[in-house]
Amino acid sequence: MKKKELGESPVVVAQEGSVGLVETKYLSFAEPFLLDNGKQLGPITVAYETYGELNEEGDNVILIEHALTASAHAAGKNSPDDKNPGWWDVMIGSGKSFDTDRYFVICSNILGSCYGTTGPSSVNPETGKPYGSSFPVITISDIVRAQYELIKHLGVKSIRSIAGGSMGGMQAIEWALLYPGMVDSLILIATAAKSSPQSIGIHKVGIQAIMDDPNWDGGNYYGEDPPEKGLSIARMLGHITYLSDGWLWEKFGRKHDDSDKIKSDLNSKFEIEKYLEYQGSKFVKRFDANSYIYILRALDIYDAGEGYANLEESLKRIKCKKVLVASYTTDWLYPSYQSSELVDALKANNIDVTYNEIDSPYGHDSFLIDYEKLNPLIKSFFNSL
Amino acid sequence: MKKKELGESPVVVAQEGSVGLVETKYLSFAEPFLLDNGKQLGPITVAYETYGELNEEGDNVILIEHALTASAHAAGKNSPDDKNPGWWDVMIGSGKSFDTDRYFVICSNILGSCYGTTGPSSVNPETGKPYGSSFPVITISDIVRAQYELIKHLGVKSIRSIAGGSMGGMQAIEWALLYPGMVDSLILIATAAKSSPQSIGIHKVGIQAIMDDPNWDGGNYYGEDPPEKGLSIARMLGHITYLSDGWLWEKFGRKHDDSDKIKSDLNSKFEIEKYLEYQGSKFVKRFDANSYIYILRALDIYDAGEGYANLEESLKRIKCKKVLVASYTTDWLYPSYQSSELVDALKANNIDVTYNEIDSPYGHDSFLIDYEKLNPLIKSFFNSL
Repeated sequence: MKKKELGESPVVVAQEGSVGLVETKYLSFAEPFLLDNGKQLGPITVAYETYGELNEEGDNVILIEHALTASAHAAGKNSPDDKNPGWWDVMIGSGKSFDTDRYFVICSNILGSCYGTTGPSSVNPETGKPYGSSFPVITISDIVRAQYELIKHLGVKSIRSIAGGSMGGMQAIEWALLYPGMVDSLILIATAAKSSPQSIGIHKVGIQAIMDDPNWDGGNYYGEDPPEKGLSIARMLGHITYLSDGWLWEKFGRKHDDSDKIKSDLNSKFEIEKYLEYQGSKFVKRFDANSYIYILRALDIYDAGEGYANLEESLKRIKCKKVLVASYTTDWLYPSYQSSELVDALKANNIDVTYNEIDSPYGHDSFLIDYEKLNPLIKSFFNSL
Repeated sequence: MKKKELGESPVVVAQEGSVGLVETKYLSFAEPFLLDNGKQLGPITVAYETYGELNEEGDNVILIEHALTASAHAAGKNSPDDKNPGWWDVMIGSGKSFDTDRYFVICSNILGSCYGTTGPSSVNPETGKPYGSSFPVITISDIVRAQYELIKHLGVKSIRSIAGGSMGGMQAIEWALLYPGMVDSLILIATAAKSSPQSIGIHKVGIQAIMDDPNWDGGNYYGEDPPEKGLSIARMLGHITYLSDGWLWEKFGRKHDDSDKIKSDLNSKFEIEKYLEYQGSKFVKRFDANSYIYILRALDIYDAGEGYANLEESLKRIKCKKVLVASYTTDWLYPSYQSSELVDALKANNIDVTYNEIDSPYGHDSFLIDYEKLNPLIKSFFNSL
């Protein structure tokens, strides 16, 4: 079982074209950050990485938006013996889709996360203790507006393209809505203009599992045992939704411990169960349970059409020249019909949209796994800009 | 929100044709029951209801097989003020699909459940205490063989038809495999010849949530607070899989508490979340957590092709004259391709199969909700027998 093929980190480390050693940097804001809900947070810190060089005009910029549990570390290695290259290493580098010979590529950790940007596990400067559940509800707009401060700080004048998969695509859309003058083009992969009630329901189950873990302790577990059991359950469920029914048949089928054992021991297991347990146990070592809750919530709340008669009306704000939209045939978390709705609303605003529904067996995670099908589309898109 | 339309109990109580007042009866076996895994259980008890009259030949019998969490109470009322008529009341009665004017209809609670048939919450005669997690792993074969003892006891010589939806369909298949000479026909609705790895994974998440609830206490919680939080999580997840993405859009969409609240209070909710919470809280009052675990496990283990080169070879044992198979377009828990596989394997054995993929928006629960589309198919099937 090649478990690594299915994780959130792509397997292939393409040495050729690698951005090499990179350092995660941190920008701490001078002032508290004003949130969507009117509350002040911080002053906050944003963790980020950059690859390539910014040109004098400050306009050769690609912004990479990460999904739920990734980090600013999108490419290269943080140390020579770093076993985990950046989460989109196969896409970012010299001669790659996001070509660092031509572009200055930026990726920052999202607000609410636990990889260097301020989140619930960060210390609240007012109390000297981690925020825990006193952390405010955040939105995709908050995440994007924090990135905007970073972008200004880096001297960026305009952005050639913003690319993101899944929740990263929502951030890209929100960028084009909030800062239309700055964004030339979007690359929206396996994403949607709003979360579906089914995905909200799935998130609910995961959030409840975390909150019901006694170790969660109202969200204030820092310095004590974290709610690993609840977080593991949430992650196991997440993993099922990232893959596809067909791929699970292909990869695991009904393989299980020997038949006598499976019929006599309640703790015997199917391969799919072992795989999920492995994913859960791996995840709890690297991610904060409160961050998981707050980021899922930002996802739930997101609706690019909010405040407008419909999505088409809302997208009138976008001034992009071109948009690339890609969905995957077996993605049931962000199904193709959600990409189609986005495409229709963009086209209705006379935006030049290229839409591809990519045939891939891996479900939602196709955007991380099946990069060979994505690469030519993105390269061709950049050539057309 | 008409919550009742979506629950496990159909809404409509058709007074006309009702079987009226019925009593749940209990058959206690004289001897311990030999399980698939070689262990002895009991002596066990089986709870059952019957509707209509058995003819002299003992061959006007319809066996109704219930799904995961239902009971022997399939039709009529258990008392004049019974607010919950039997779970398939719309289908069973005078002039209904399962016509009690012509047939003697039997439904029994499955082994491992908590509605009168022996399960983990039953008292182990050897210890005088509830089995808890000392209850043995059970299989669909065990469930069916317990039913066979009941059928013999009732004087049944042969069965005109066995009908079941979801897990009920698996029992029907197993009946035809174990007792081919007794079964004239099968009605298999929203079912499959084996559980998919995706469904096993989903079950895993629910089982883990129950087992991680401190109140589960290794399965020996009887007389103390039961693991309601874990069971509620398992049920919420189950409910998502019983419905469909499209139906959730239709029914709940993205409706939520007012926008200011949803963006500032982590405990504010979307309608879909309230619905799931309601379903979870309702369920924990009526179902035993250990029963839920053991029955899910029986589902996971089931494979009608087990021990044979493939499903087609295994189904050579079936001597049925006719089989009706129905699946639903929006059922993603037991998708139509699983019914198609079953149909192909039956047809390869020259069994007369009628297959209908029914267009219905309600997902897997269509077999309980959209009975108006099912009724004519079943009536026509009985007319053809």
